[in-house]
Amino acid sequence: MLQLFKKKSFVIWLTGVSGVGKTTTAEALRKHFLKKKYKVEYLNGDVIRSVFNNTSFDRQSINDHIKKIGFFASILEKNGIVVICDFISPFEESRKFVESICKDFYLIYLYSNNVEKRDSKGLYKRYRNEEIKNIAGMDIPYEIPEVDYIKKIKISTDVFSTKQTVNKIIRLID
Amino acid sequence: MLQLFKKKSFVIWLTGVSGVGKTTTAEALRKHFLKKKYKVEYLNGDVIRSVFNNTSFDRQSINDHIKKIGFFASILEKNGIVVICDFISPFEESRKFVESICKDFYLIYLYSNNVEKRDSKGLYKRYRNEEIKNIAGMDIPYEIPEVDYIKKIKISTDVFSTKQTVNKIIRLID
Repeated sequence: MLQLFKKKSFVIWLTGVSGVGKTTTAEALRKHFLKKKYKVEYLNGDVIRSVFNNTSFDRQSINDHIKKIGFFASILEKNGIVVICDFISPFEESRKFVESICKDFYLIYLYSNNVEKRDSKGLYKRYRNEEIKNIAGMDIPYEIPEVDYIKKIKISTDVFSTKQTVNKIIRLID
Repeated sequence: MLQLFKKKSFVIWLTGVSGVGKTTTAEALRKHFLKKKYKVEYLNGDVIRSVFNNTSFDRQSINDHIKKIGFFASILEKNGIVVICDFISPFEESRKFVESICKDFYLIYLYSNNVEKRDSKGLYKRYRNEEIKNIAGMDIPYEIPEVDYIKKIKISTDVFSTKQTVNKIIRLID
């Protein structure tokens, strides 16, 4: 299983609105790299927000939150750990910051035209019913990331399966 | 140099007001554990605040900041890294939170009666001249930590040298 010349560590940053498939993709990536004997840490936005549940949803608070997570992702990377980050991270400013401090950073922008139709968590329905707010792509703007097809790509989860998405990401890193 | 049965990773949390000797102690600890072939990450409050320079100094912001750092310290610990944390961390609430989420956590409370007299960074003088504010122990309260002499100790840097302080900490962990 040991691979020579393989990359030791890097940061994969999954961005996109709720329900687009970030977590499904992240879990599949995690399994892939664990199987390949990498040390992997998976940072999930919902989990971290549940620990720090008074993090606000204004632009500055979101940017600060994402920057801090990115800072620690870069420390994990420096320590030889593959870091899979699963955060809506709607703002270009904080995504760019994280990119700038990581050594080997891959941005994966997942998108879909059907997130509200699918609505796997019932989030959009609750938003439309005015039961919740702070939904990226709705009352919080989601800034579409710049992609360069070198280290930053976009993948439509309407078109590609989880397996195909994971393969695209692996090919990008290899 | 390899030691059998040695602890793989743990978190050493240095707390105390500015100028008490946290950074000197942290640097000495870092050298010690690197020499012993541990993987070490050193998290320094001033460095992290300089990256996140809009972190506020009200009680909730300080607590949130320290809790987030502690959360990531616990992830580093889980990944086999010795984490040396050097933060004023004036509030018991966030220190207790960090203690609760780390597996093997040591709290080192450094204190001195002479921080203002020594004033190595000129911080207290600038505070007295009303040039700066947000100084723990002055306008920000510093809550003295509970110690149990098992995993939480206090050390007077008036009485003990850096070397003696480091030895006390090493004996605590061993």
